[in-house]
Amino acid sequence: MEFKAGRTFLFRVPAGEDLLEAINRSAESRGIKTGVVMGIGSLRNPVVGYYSEEEKRYRSIELSGTFELLSLNGNISLKDGKPFAHLHVTLGDEEGRVFGGHLIRGEVFVAEVYIEELIGKPLERKDMGNNLWLWETER
Amino acid sequence: MEFKAGRTFLFRVPAGEDLLEAINRSAESRGIKTGVVMGIGSLRNPVVGYYSEEEKRYRSIELSGTFELLSLNGNISLKDGKPFAHLHVTLGDEEGRVFGGHLIRGEVFVAEVYIEELIGKPLERKDMGNNLWLWETER
Amino acid sequence: MEFKAGRTFLFRVPAGEDLLEAINRSAESRGIKTGVVMGIGSLRNPVVGYYSEEEKRYRSIELSGTFELLSLNGNISLKDGKPFAHLHVTLGDEEGRVFGGHLIRGEVFVAEVYIEELIGKPLERKDMGNNLWLWETER
Repeated sequence: MEFKAGRTFLFRVPAGEDLLEAINRSAESRGIKTGVVMGIGSLRNPVVGYYSEEEKRYRSIELSGTFELLSLNGNISLKDGKPFAHLHVTLGDEEGRVFGGHLIRGEVFVAEVYIEELIGKPLERKDMGNNLWLWETER
Repeated sequence: MEFKAGRTFLFRVPAGEDLLEAINRSAESRGIKTGVVMGIGSLRNPVVGYYSEEEKRYRSIELSGTFELLSLNGNISLKDGKPFAHLHVTLGDEEGRVFGGHLIRGEVFVAEVYIEELIGKPLERKDMGNNLWLWETER
Repeated sequence: MEFKAGRTFLFRVPAGEDLLEAINRSAESRGIKTGVVMGIGSLRNPVVGYYSEEEKRYRSIELSGTFELLSLNGNISLKDGKPFAHLHVTLGDEEGRVFGGHLIRGEVFVAEVYIEELIGKPLERKDMGNNLWLWETER
């Protein structure tokens, strides 16, 4: 799917907020239906998911402590008609070891987030019957 | 090298395809000569490379199982006159541990890929004589 | 904060240079006040930081050897009136294990860097009194 570049936003999420909720709220209040997301920062007690093909569900991995947010990558599209951010993260601990997964939850200590809006026919996530909500593959 | 922003694409690669081949094909069929690539998803049995300065070649690292694709970063430029994607990945396992390298191969379970085309004088990869194909450094 | 997309740059940093210094110099010589940064490559003997909330300072983590630069993510804004890159990295070793943190130092073996300039009211980093220089949160 081809899009036109829309608005761009670079901002800091205040400490104490949940990163995923903050990005979803930002997309909704700005009317961003489609976009890409990038960011860095530091998260407290992040919870990430691993999707098990066998079990057809996400397993939760709870990390304890404050982690450098080394990469935040993903996109915004529509789910149930509302903007929905699908984000993956890598996280570094005090010895430089790295953990990561699908972002489920994480309290912001610092988060510097970039969103680029894409203008075009909206992408809609649909239930694939295995706890995954995906876009149809139209290229 | 300065470029103008070109077209932007956000799309899902169908399950079962090889991620690298799918991105190269997408660039070729769309006529993208230069661009940047970002993405997330989940890959089966990915193979990544580590370039050894001493041995002057890539070593292959074969990972077994399905991994969250936590970050997919890289670019598209020309090699032998054709669009060529140079991509690095980080991959998360079921316990949140992270592995990664230069993307050699990986079967898509889910892949949500963003490509931004850049318009300008094409960047060409040239053989540096050490199994590395690089752009000349022009800044 | 909303910005307009400015110029875009994709370039290779010559081997032997320090990656962070090279990006800061690139931003300064091009007059980039605000932007986002992405990249991949390979770094020699990188040094990364972990910010300890308890100690209110960065701890340095020194890595020895050549690592694949799996992700380079961050932004450019102003600090003391000059362009300043805040960058996080993930790094892969010869067995595919991944380390990372806030980029302090790292000699380039290969670095392919993308910078997208953002045009708007400049973001200024201010001393928060805890060895962190952050933007005010204006959304």
